[in-house]
Amino acid sequence: MLSATSNVISHGIAAAKEYPVSLRRTLILLAVGLLAVGLLASFNIAFAQDDPGPTNEWLGGYADNIVTMVAAALVFFMQAGFALLGAGLIRSKNTTNYLTKSFMDFAIASLGFWAFGFAFMLGDTASGFIGVTGWFLTSGDYVGWIFQMVFAATAATIVAGAMAERTKLQTYLAYSFIVSSLIYPIYGHWVWGDGWLGAMGALDYAGSGVVHAVGGFIALAGAFVVGPRIGKFINGRPQEMPAHSTPFVVTGTFILFFGWFGFNVGTGDDIGLNAVNTLLAGATGAVVALYITLVANGKADILMACNGALAGLVGITAPVNFVDPWAAVVIGAIAAPVMYFALMFVERVLKIDDPVGAISVHGFTGLWGLLAVAIFATDGGLVTGATGLLVPQIVSIVAVVVWSLVTGLALFYMLKFSMGVRVSEAEELEGLDISEHGIQTYPEATASS
Amino acid sequence: MLSATSNVISHGIAAAKEYPVSLRRTLILLAVGLLAVGLLASFNIAFAQDDPGPTNEWLGGYADNIVTMVAAALVFFMQAGFALLGAGLIRSKNTTNYLTKSFMDFAIASLGFWAFGFAFMLGDTASGFIGVTGWFLTSGDYVGWIFQMVFAATAATIVAGAMAERTKLQTYLAYSFIVSSLIYPIYGHWVWGDGWLGAMGALDYAGSGVVHAVGGFIALAGAFVVGPRIGKFINGRPQEMPAHSTPFVVTGTFILFFGWFGFNVGTGDDIGLNAVNTLLAGATGAVVALYITLVANGKADILMACNGALAGLVGITAPVNFVDPWAAVVIGAIAAPVMYFALMFVERVLKIDDPVGAISVHGFTGLWGLLAVAIFATDGGLVTGATGLLVPQIVSIVAVVVWSLVTGLALFYMLKFSMGVRVSEAEELEGLDISEHGIQTYPEATASS
Amino acid sequence: MLSATSNVISHGIAAAKEYPVSLRRTLILLAVGLLAVGLLASFNIAFAQDDPGPTNEWLGGYADNIVTMVAAALVFFMQAGFALLGAGLIRSKNTTNYLTKSFMDFAIASLGFWAFGFAFMLGDTASGFIGVTGWFLTSGDYVGWIFQMVFAATAATIVAGAMAERTKLQTYLAYSFIVSSLIYPIYGHWVWGDGWLGAMGALDYAGSGVVHAVGGFIALAGAFVVGPRIGKFINGRPQEMPAHSTPFVVTGTFILFFGWFGFNVGTGDDIGLNAVNTLLAGATGAVVALYITLVANGKADILMACNGALAGLVGITAPVNFVDPWAAVVIGAIAAPVMYFALMFVERVLKIDDPVGAISVHGFTGLWGLLAVAIFATDGGLVTGATGLLVPQIVSIVAVVVWSLVTGLALFYMLKFSMGVRVSEAEELEGLDISEHGIQTYPEATASS
Repeated sequence: MLSATSNVISHGIAAAKEYPVSLRRTLILLAVGLLAVGLLASFNIAFAQDDPGPTNEWLGGYADNIVTMVAAALVFFMQAGFALLGAGLIRSKNTTNYLTKSFMDFAIASLGFWAFGFAFMLGDTASGFIGVTGWFLTSGDYVGWIFQMVFAATAATIVAGAMAERTKLQTYLAYSFIVSSLIYPIYGHWVWGDGWLGAMGALDYAGSGVVHAVGGFIALAGAFVVGPRIGKFINGRPQEMPAHSTPFVVTGTFILFFGWFGFNVGTGDDIGLNAVNTLLAGATGAVVALYITLVANGKADILMACNGALAGLVGITAPVNFVDPWAAVVIGAIAAPVMYFALMFVERVLKIDDPVGAISVHGFTGLWGLLAVAIFATDGGLVTGATGLLVPQIVSIVAVVVWSLVTGLALFYMLKFSMGVRVSEAEELEGLDISEHGIQTYPEATASS
Repeated sequence: MLSATSNVISHGIAAAKEYPVSLRRTLILLAVGLLAVGLLASFNIAFAQDDPGPTNEWLGGYADNIVTMVAAALVFFMQAGFALLGAGLIRSKNTTNYLTKSFMDFAIASLGFWAFGFAFMLGDTASGFIGVTGWFLTSGDYVGWIFQMVFAATAATIVAGAMAERTKLQTYLAYSFIVSSLIYPIYGHWVWGDGWLGAMGALDYAGSGVVHAVGGFIALAGAFVVGPRIGKFINGRPQEMPAHSTPFVVTGTFILFFGWFGFNVGTGDDIGLNAVNTLLAGATGAVVALYITLVANGKADILMACNGALAGLVGITAPVNFVDPWAAVVIGAIAAPVMYFALMFVERVLKIDDPVGAISVHGFTGLWGLLAVAIFATDGGLVTGATGLLVPQIVSIVAVVVWSLVTGLALFYMLKFSMGVRVSEAEELEGLDISEHGIQTYPEATASS
Repeated sequence: MLSATSNVISHGIAAAKEYPVSLRRTLILLAVGLLAVGLLASFNIAFAQDDPGPTNEWLGGYADNIVTMVAAALVFFMQAGFALLGAGLIRSKNTTNYLTKSFMDFAIASLGFWAFGFAFMLGDTASGFIGVTGWFLTSGDYVGWIFQMVFAATAATIVAGAMAERTKLQTYLAYSFIVSSLIYPIYGHWVWGDGWLGAMGALDYAGSGVVHAVGGFIALAGAFVVGPRIGKFINGRPQEMPAHSTPFVVTGTFILFFGWFGFNVGTGDDIGLNAVNTLLAGATGAVVALYITLVANGKADILMACNGALAGLVGITAPVNFVDPWAAVVIGAIAAPVMYFALMFVERVLKIDDPVGAISVHGFTGLWGLLAVAIFATDGGLVTGATGLLVPQIVSIVAVVVWSLVTGLALFYMLKFSMGVRVSEAEELEGLDISEHGIQTYPEATASS
């Protein structure tokens, strides 16, 4: 266009010679004016392009990337939360073993998700079932990968707590690789990739289903296959096995809550709403759970309040971007009893020993989160009188339970009949720290349970 | 070039008078068009994009929101710091109880601040005394709410430490709700809302007064009403009651320091200066406090150094955005002895038992922060020879002490004569973990104090 | 205005029909030119505001500053990681002493780096050896200072672990001031300032050499001068001295890993790649180190896996911005055995007692990081067939070892013959917590080693 402009101007000047002076002058002045305006316009552009600086779209993408990277770092830090929470909830004779699993599963998941998981999850789809492109991060989508990676590691580590105090280390490490490379990514593909659940309209904003329910129901499979700890059930009645460090439990919960601001965050306008909903649901879950224990036992159970906070957080994870703050309070308030009764159901009805409550907190409350989308979403939920989300969310719930239990049982039985899943009775009684690691968690302490 | 353009246009219009109407009209229209285009080019309108992308103003707001949200997450994490710091400073037989209070007060404060506090604090003012609009976050200001919320929770949790080891849990939870819903927000409204202190020019950038002094002087009221722990004063002389875990104290302090980078941060150009001032004041406070103890006792007291760091941080909180880095060093250096002598004053003169030093660290040092604004502000401070800030800052100091003590005493006496504030002597001697929670903090440990 | 413009143009074209061809052509051409300029103005990108708001360049700089400040906060938090890691790895009778050093060295380093270090490091160069301008942060480069400051503090604190359990507190504090004011900044100037190593093309993106190798080899000097702990070597054979708290070690490592996302981050497009490389190298280091111990001893050593993760992180720190993710995996995989054999070399060959392995993890693996740049850099590395980086990187390696050892030995011998570096035998046997601080780390615990 600049050349068109100068062309016009030169023709105009040439043509002007045919007319009277005054007209010529006028035309020349007009031409000069045009030139001036053209230069002005060019100058503006030139100013912007000589030293163009970043474009607005690039800046917007940069800002989004900053949010995503901060979020990813926070979600990474949740690994420390899981480590402390679980370590505090179990007995010290198995704490080093638990910490080893909790630390290594993230490391192994990183490699599995780098090599295979990311491709299975977010590669081009094969019939909506599994992704098949982008192995070894060849896509170059670094920001996307690291954000997905820390979610995969979260799903993986949930299982460590449910199987704590009796599972072989090597078996657990093999599980970590398979779950992060294959089982987690395939369900993730269904919802967040080009998969069939997403295609039918199922919503799971930050992973009540994809991360927590998957982790929670694989944990159920694992805890079932490995069996309860020695002494957990006496004549079929569950026995108390006290948490060895309350400060670790509370600190771990705070770290998880802190990290959840990364877990549930979006970009742009979402960051405010999502953070508010996250905070309110977690806080409400804690308060409701504490008062449940006060009413039920006359004692304020801080460990249950911590699980209540986590239940509220798991529950809000799927709907976080689709609901108003008042709904976040309701979702958190319901998440606490869901978690509480699930704990009883798992322990008393299923007779499954879950030392940290992972099955209830992440599994059952994760299902509540998926359902809550259908109820409270401001567009399409029951609360607006629409029923558009009800079917896809219920299908999601069934799908995540079936997929996680079936693949989890297959995996752990496979491991049971190959590597074995459980340490010997003698090792378990002595504590896994000695038998698998040859050290004590607190070698200077004289007491051990 | 603009002048060239308008010159051309006026000449063109003048010259056009010599030609026939139609030509004249054409030329005038062309001239007007040229003017239009010139204006377009010069003032350059906002529809200048094919694919406009975000505007610069939106991007600037987005970047500000990112900073605020990261800051809010960091301030949230300070809850873990307070939990660990306090847990470490007290005896293990009351640690679970303290952690319960520290965890629950934030959860309860979230709900109270959501329902009432935010409206009282930042709603439209009623005569400069209290806000009266925006209940239940109906304003939709999510980013603003969450940032204010984590500050409210900080003020609330300061009190837990000063009343630790003898206060009833239920009473403490009731206190948490009232302070975050009402007492904290009203003073906050005076300074940060449309209140009378802000109107008279009082400055408190990040809350030396609003957060720390409010928390610290309510803590003084609470510790006074609940009375000292059994065995703290023997014949009027204070006794040493050792911190049960140094690592928790140091880790808690590091977490608080880390979170303070969120607490004191602003947006735009402020983030650099504010972070530098925060770091320097905290570091100087730690160094000065350590050497005070070395000189006074011949022993390097790390617990006091931690309190010194916190004192420096509390002191710089109000002036952080108004002073130069050298002044931050001076403010931190003075904050440490302020805290140290306040500790002695509270314990030896007032005979008040504050197990963690919250009254001194947050209360008295918070006042120092308010005063420091008047001294060191680069514009209006005594250091520049101006006295413009002296009166409003001194009025702030008086206001925060009077408001916090009066409402704090009213609240805790009210609770004392309704729910009761203190556990029984037997419960206190046994430890609140057993009596209120039915568990031990470290059930495997044989020793307890 | 656009409608005015098009109105003018259509009228102009209509009116032009009344005039001779040449004039008409001129007018049409002028009109087309006007249209062209109008369009130009319309497409025109920058300058697009009545109320211009921030410019794109300012926004880009703001976004960069946000990244840098978040990174600085994360690196600051690594101090808590070092504190917990070291505290966990040593015996509880010296833990408060270690924590005191770990806490105070950062505070003292802040002041030293504020007064002198930053100027020596990044001030205008004197012959490429040392910076000589910008004392006391007079430059006003706040964001730059705080980012450099937290790196300096990292280098300083590395030494605390290697000298733990027998070094005098006061001596250690004096060391902290000198290393952060002088020794660290001078080497930093050579690489990151206008120094001779940078001038010859040496690359060290985030400080494998500048931070970790400097810290690690000063630690070697310090551990050599102070000598081994009583009981560490019996008849020349190293004895096991068990870590007193595994949870602290694992939590500390997680915090360090979390902080490393700040340590290694850049701005703009770098943040994704750098984070991915950081995660993969650290994860691989952990996995390889764990399996080394499983093969070597039949026990999975989580303490070694933590050191393996840190080794991977130290190794990727220099090349993080120059290599592909696959190379990060390889670099992490090699870092683990480098660390492992360095541990043996230091303990068995040099007979130097390093209670936390800092010399190996930070020193020797830091050298591997410098070398890895020359091998794996996508532009100039051996992997691309180029040898451009080999010489400068090898010169860096020699320079960092010589500089750190020579100045470290000079410093610690100077301190030895002035203040003394080592506590008395009686104090060491009793534990430094009692002798230097008058308190116990866990006063309620009955057991101590």
